[in-house]
Amino acid sequence: MTEKKTYIPAFEIEIQELERAILEDYGRGRVIDRLELFTQPDGAVIEELIEKLFRVVFPGYFRDHTYRIFNLRNSISNLLEDIAHHLSEQTAIALRSGGMDEKKVRSEAERITAEFLSRIPEVREAADMDLSAAFDGDPAAGSREEIIISYPGLYATTVQRLAHVLYELNVPLIPRIMAEYAHNRTGIDIHPGARIGRRFFIDHGTGIVIGETSVIGDNVKIYQGVTLGALSTREGQRAHGKKRHPTIENNVTIYAGASILGGDTVIGHDSIIGSNAFITRSVEPGTRVSVSNRELQFRSGGSPAKPEAEPAKSGGDAWCYII
Amino acid sequence: MTEKKTYIPAFEIEIQELERAILEDYGRGRVIDRLELFTQPDGAVIEELIEKLFRVVFPGYFRDHTYRIFNLRNSISNLLEDIAHHLSEQTAIALRSGGMDEKKVRSEAERITAEFLSRIPEVREAADMDLSAAFDGDPAAGSREEIIISYPGLYATTVQRLAHVLYELNVPLIPRIMAEYAHNRTGIDIHPGARIGRRFFIDHGTGIVIGETSVIGDNVKIYQGVTLGALSTREGQRAHGKKRHPTIENNVTIYAGASILGGDTVIGHDSIIGSNAFITRSVEPGTRVSVSNRELQFRSGGSPAKPEAEPAKSGGDAWCYII
Amino acid sequence: MTEKKTYIPAFEIEIQELERAILEDYGRGRVIDRLELFTQPDGAVIEELIEKLFRVVFPGYFRDHTYRIFNLRNSISNLLEDIAHHLSEQTAIALRSGGMDEKKVRSEAERITAEFLSRIPEVREAADMDLSAAFDGDPAAGSREEIIISYPGLYATTVQRLAHVLYELNVPLIPRIMAEYAHNRTGIDIHPGARIGRRFFIDHGTGIVIGETSVIGDNVKIYQGVTLGALSTREGQRAHGKKRHPTIENNVTIYAGASILGGDTVIGHDSIIGSNAFITRSVEPGTRVSVSNRELQFRSGGSPAKPEAEPAKSGGDAWCYII
Repeated sequence: MTEKKTYIPAFEIEIQELERAILEDYGRGRVIDRLELFTQPDGAVIEELIEKLFRVVFPGYFRDHTYRIFNLRNSISNLLEDIAHHLSEQTAIALRSGGMDEKKVRSEAERITAEFLSRIPEVREAADMDLSAAFDGDPAAGSREEIIISYPGLYATTVQRLAHVLYELNVPLIPRIMAEYAHNRTGIDIHPGARIGRRFFIDHGTGIVIGETSVIGDNVKIYQGVTLGALSTREGQRAHGKKRHPTIENNVTIYAGASILGGDTVIGHDSIIGSNAFITRSVEPGTRVSVSNRELQFRSGGSPAKPEAEPAKSGGDAWCYII
Repeated sequence: MTEKKTYIPAFEIEIQELERAILEDYGRGRVIDRLELFTQPDGAVIEELIEKLFRVVFPGYFRDHTYRIFNLRNSISNLLEDIAHHLSEQTAIALRSGGMDEKKVRSEAERITAEFLSRIPEVREAADMDLSAAFDGDPAAGSREEIIISYPGLYATTVQRLAHVLYELNVPLIPRIMAEYAHNRTGIDIHPGARIGRRFFIDHGTGIVIGETSVIGDNVKIYQGVTLGALSTREGQRAHGKKRHPTIENNVTIYAGASILGGDTVIGHDSIIGSNAFITRSVEPGTRVSVSNRELQFRSGGSPAKPEAEPAKSGGDAWCYII
Repeated sequence: MTEKKTYIPAFEIEIQELERAILEDYGRGRVIDRLELFTQPDGAVIEELIEKLFRVVFPGYFRDHTYRIFNLRNSISNLLEDIAHHLSEQTAIALRSGGMDEKKVRSEAERITAEFLSRIPEVREAADMDLSAAFDGDPAAGSREEIIISYPGLYATTVQRLAHVLYELNVPLIPRIMAEYAHNRTGIDIHPGARIGRRFFIDHGTGIVIGETSVIGDNVKIYQGVTLGALSTREGQRAHGKKRHPTIENNVTIYAGASILGGDTVIGHDSIIGSNAFITRSVEPGTRVSVSNRELQFRSGGSPAKPEAEPAKSGGDAWCYII
C-alpha cells in the first residue's frame, strides 16, 4: 500500500497511526509482548504429527490423500522418517524453551524421539485393546472399522496414549498441545499426565475431564460429562506435582455426569458409579453407588408457567428453568 | 535418506531399526493391522460432501470460495453432479466393506445415491422449518441469516437429517462418520438413526446426546447437556437393534442437563421437563416435571475454606468442589 | 458430463432429473431459498481474521507458517493492513445485510474498523491479565507459554473480547460468527454481548454457556459446564434486548456444573458457588453456596444388576444409569 503515494485516503492514514500504537504496545515487556519467532513448538506441525501418527497406529484406516502409494510398507517407512524428523525438531524447540542447555538440546531431542518411536508398538497394542473394549461395550457400534474411523472416545484416548509417552519423557509443552488438539476435536479433556490402563472405553465423551494425576485401571468405562478432578484448594501453582486426582481401579464403570474428586479418593475395583454421583471419598470394591431419587415434582394440565420463582429459603423453586 | 550412503548418523540407524520393529508389529493380524488401502469410506471426502450438501441445502449462504460463478443455477448443477459422483463412490466402498457381493455394489450405490438426492427437497423443507423454530424460540437471535451461518444446533440437526436418509437406506459407516463430524464441530452428538420431527430446536447444544433409537416429535426444543439415552444393560452388542432410547412426543421442551432414559420411556406431548431432571419412566401429556429444590447451604462471611471434607457417611460434604 | 453425448447411462439421466427437482425447490421463496451471493459475511474469511488477530494479540506465539519474515515489526504492519482491509470489507457486507443505506455503508465500515483497531491495545491488556489469572489459578499449568498456545479457556475468552468490541459497535452477524467459531473449537459458548471484567479464568471449559446479557466482574473463575443463563419465558423474540442473564460480582468462583439464572440474579462479590448448585436468586457477598449431600446409596458385593427400575412414585430408582 505504501507504493500508492499518489493517493492515500484518510482511512489508510488512520490505520497506519493505529499500527504505530499497536507496535508501541509491544514494547511493554509483558509475556504476551514477546516477539521472538520459533521459540515455541508449532501447533500446526504438531497437529500434522498427530495425523501422521494415526496413520502409523492404524495403517489401513487413515490415508494420505495427496498421493497414493501402493507399497504401504514403503510409505510407512517414509512416514516414520518424516515423523522422526519433525518430532525431533519440535522437541528440541520445546526443550530449549524449557531452559535446557543448548549443548544438550539436540542429542536429548533425538534420544527422546527414538524412545518415543520404540514405544509405538506398545501404544498400538493398547489401542487394539481399547478398540475391542469399545466394540464389546457399545450396542450402537456397527463394526470395529466404524469405531476406528469415527469414534471420538477412541480418538481422544489414542492421542492421550501418544502424548503420555512424551509426558513421561518430560517433554515440555508438546504433550499438552496434543491433548488440547484432541480436546478441541472431541470435547474430551484428558491431561497427558493421566495414567490409563488397558481396555479403556469412553462412550459419547463430550464434557469428560480427566486430571493430570488421575490413575485409571483396566476395563474402565466412562460416559459423557464425567469428571475425575481435584478438590478445591487455594494452593494454585503450589499444588503443581502433587496427586490431586482420583484413582479408579479395574472393572469400574462411571456413568454420565458423575464427578469423582480428590487425590486420595479411590474407587475400588468392580464398582459402578451411577449417573450424576458426586464422590469425594473412597468407595470399597464391589460397590454400586447411585444417587437417591432427586424428588421430582409433577404438575399436570393447564397450570400457567411462572417465570418468577416463588420465594423460598434456599435457591429458588422456579418450575421451569431455561438455559 | 538411503541415498546419503556417505554419512549415516547414529540417530538415523536407530530410526531405521525402530521402523523395522513397527513394520513387524503390523504382522500380528489384529484388526488395527489391516494394511489394505481404500476399503473404508474416506473421512475427508465425506467432510467435503457435507460442505457441498450445505451449499445445496442453503444455496445463498455457503459459497465456494475458490472461484466465483455468477450463474448460481449452473454452479448448483455442477455441485450436484459432483456430490452424486463422490457419494456413489463412497457408498460403493461402504457397501463393499459391509460385505456386499461385488456384482451388486455399483448398481446399489447408484440406486442409493439417486434415492438420497430425491430426498433433498424434503430435507430442505425440514431445515426451513427448523430455522423458523430457532428464530421464534431464541431471544438472542438477531436474524434468520445469523442462525443459518452460525448456529451449531441448526448445523448438527441438518447434518443429522442428511445422515438419517443414508441410515434408512442401510448404508454402512457413512451416516456415523457424518454424525461424528457434526459432533466434533458442535459438541452435539445425535445418532443418525434417531427419528426427528419438524421444527426441532437445539439451543446452545454442547453435551447433547441423542441415541440411535430415539423418536422425537414436532415442535420439540432441547437445551445443552440433555441426554436421550438408554438404561444400563449388560447386553452390549446383543442390544444392537432394539429400541433402547426414549420417545419424545410433540410440543415438549427439555431444559438443560436433563436426562431421559429407556426405550419404553415416553414423554407425553405438551410436557416440560425441567433442568437436570432425571427420568426413567414415562410422563403423561401436559405434565411439568421439575426437580425439587436441591437444598442449598449458605455460609456467610469469614468462614475459612476447608480443603478437606468433614467425615460423613455418604459421599462427602466438602464446601467447595473443584473440578 | 454433457459433452459425453455418445453415452449417457441411466444413472446420469436420473441425476439430471433430480437436479431439476432441486432447482425447482429453490423457487419456493423461503429464507433458505435465497440465491444471491455475497450478501452475508464470509465465515472462512472471519476465521482467518481471528487467526490473524491472534498473531497481533500474541505476536510471538502464533506464526504465519507459509513464509518466514525476520522483521516481525514489518510483518505485523502488513498483517494489520490485511486485517483492516478484510474487516472493513466483511463489516460492509454485514451492515448492508442489516439494511443500512448503501451510501453510508462504506464510511461506516471504515469508521468501525478504525475504532476496532484502536481498541486492540485494550484487548491485549485484558488478555495479559487473563493469562496471569490462568497461570496463578491452575496447578496443571507448566508455564505461561503453555497457556497461550494451548488453553481453550484463554482462547475462547480472547475471541470473545475481540467479538465484544464489534458487538458494542453494533456490527451485525460478525460477532456471533466469531463466538460460534470459538465455541466449535473449545466447547465454550460465550455470547459476544457478555461483559467480562479483568483476570477472567476459565478452567477446562467444555459446556460453559454465558448468555448475551451476562455481566461478569474482575477475578472471576469458572469451571466446565457452568451456565449463566436466563429463566424460562414464553417471550421468545420479544425478550430480545432485555437483561436476561445474571450479574457476577468481583472475586467469585463458580465450580463445575453450576447454573446461575435470571437477569436480576446477582452473585455478590467474594462468593463461592459450589459444584452443581442451581441458583435463581441473588446471593449476598461473601457467601459460600454448596449443595447438600445428594444422598448416595451404596450397595455392596454380589447384588445382581437390575436393568429395570423398581416402581417408585417419582422419576424412578434404577441402580445403574447408562447414557
